Amino acid sequence: MNIDLDAQMAFLMEADRLKSVQRATRLADGSRVENSAEHSWHLTLFALTLADHAPDEVSIDRVIRMLILHDLVEVYAGDTPIHGIASATQEADEAAAADRIFGLLPASQGAAFRALWDEFEAGQTRDARFARALDRFQPPNLNLANGGGSWTEYDVSEAQVRARVGTRIERGAPALWAWLSPRIAAFFGL
Amino acid sequence: MNIDLDAQMAFLMEADRLKSVQRATRLADGSRVENSAEHSWHLTLFALTLADHAPDEVSIDRVIRMLILHDLVEVYAGDTPIHGIASATQEADEAAAADRIFGLLPASQGAAFRALWDEFEAGQTRDARFARALDRFQPPNLNLANGGGSWTEYDVSEAQVRARVGTRIERGAPALWAWLSPRIAAFFGL
Repeated sequence: MNIDLDAQMAFLMEADRLKSVQRATRLADGSRVENSAEHSWHLTLFALTLADHAPDEVSIDRVIRMLILHDLVEVYAGDTPIHGIASATQEADEAAAADRIFGLLPASQGAAFRALWDEFEAGQTRDARFARALDRFQPPNLNLANGGGSWTEYDVSEAQVRARVGTRIERGAPALWAWLSPRIAAFFGL
Repeated sequence: MNIDLDAQMAFLMEADRLKSVQRATRLADGSRVENSAEHSWHLTLFALTLADHAPDEVSIDRVIRMLILHDLVEVYAGDTPIHGIASATQEADEAAAADRIFGLLPASQGAAFRALWDEFEAGQTRDARFARALDRFQPPNLNLANGGGSWTEYDVSEAQVRARVGTRIERGAPALWAWLSPRIAAFFGL
């Protein structure tokens, strides 16, 4: 008997459902929409690769841990598209989902994972701000690669992109926003 | 102009192709096969969650970094199923793929990522052995969840499972093998 390992494996198998949560963003080749599990992997690779563009004192390993966990609540609460309309109960739904998914773990580990997720959601620490910047930085790059993607589908204007993703990217990763901003301008200027 | 960031973004967009590499293993719900990008995310979650079952002196953050990168060569070389037949040129193909994908990065970063991948492939360090154990530990758990999966599809015997996955799991993560082994016995004993 290994009660902790039984609980951890139940958590890991439930987490498998994140592979079936569809996002609004399409893959770089446009062939289909991305799911939240492969999106989470892509973000960890962004963090590892773009570490030298993070503000000082950001811990990339903590950022990676946050990104591994950041979308897990979607297993129950679903994805809320950046350019879609959030339900009135989204925040409460996600908090309830966090209780449920992290509640599968042994108590102290569940609390530690929940604390990392809460930190990400609050966006107040440097690590969380960088993690959240990457979460907003990846989709525009996929849209630019596939010729418009969710911008075209949701009929999004340049001003809306700047408000919905630019603000958060600039706050957590100004160097990445300086690189992306003219590319967004060029796309919408076509 | 930011030559390093241009190169890093080219690498990250090329890496997006890992989402289109199909594996032999089916999701826990059996609905479809897993792709290598979401598999990589799942493994990072395994590492984070099962850290307390790792042998002493394993660095979980290094293991996570290895797992983020471990399948990237499949962007060019494809996946080789555990229970499939490897091509005669698999090792050379993967090395050439590693040259190509990590070669997109600024030289010093490409060399650092390549060194982590080489360490994973060689399986000689404690970190690499734990990472490789997780890479073998996840698929049997999906098969057990979905009622046989790739074991049924590839007509695999219990002895083959023990040889192809048991050996490597036991070597890198004996506590996880102790947990899994009786479950495999129970499945094949049905």
